[in-house]
Amino acid sequence: MIKVVAKNWIKEAYMQDLLDLCKELIEVTHKEKGCISYEMYQDESDECILTMIETWASKEDLDSHLQSDHFKRLAPKFANMLKRETEMNIYTKIL
Amino acid sequence: MIKVVAKNWIKEAYMQDLLDLCKELIEVTHKEKGCISYEMYQDESDECILTMIETWASKEDLDSHLQSDHFKRLAPKFANMLKRETEMNIYTKIL
Repeated sequence: MIKVVAKNWIKEAYMQDLLDLCKELIEVTHKEKGCISYEMYQDESDECILTMIETWASKEDLDSHLQSDHFKRLAPKFANMLKRETEMNIYTKIL
Repeated sequence: MIKVVAKNWIKEAYMQDLLDLCKELIEVTHKEKGCISYEMYQDESDECILTMIETWASKEDLDSHLQSDHFKRLAPKFANMLKRETEMNIYTKIL
């Protein structure tokens, strides 16, 4: 099982546009093979920090997601809405 | 429901000591009121990045955890084992 934490710093003016895109991405991603959870969280002290926390059955399933048509179509649209590059970590559970 | 992501950069020499401390912390934390999950993850590309991903029933339960005797006893022991300050975010689910 794989956990992904993708932390994004959003330009305030694009907040609603980004949430709309995320809703679309989440809806289609939930139907993907191996997607156990795929959820968006907001930081309690900085509302411009939005973090996707994901659980995938395997690394192969995560790779398929990152190569999917919908991810490759939607991901570039996010780029212009971010203050800085997404901080993404891929994790395995050790304890 | 509250999600916490606490990202730690560990000094390599202290890896086993830190894991031993974490086992102790996890065992006692799992018994706390409102602790839904409390798990340690390792980054797949940098084994010195260890991240605690936590789910708490409420902010009050998280605050009680941070004020608990065992947390206040164990947390200072981690400080010397880290390359830099822990990056901690407290999140609420929005999508």
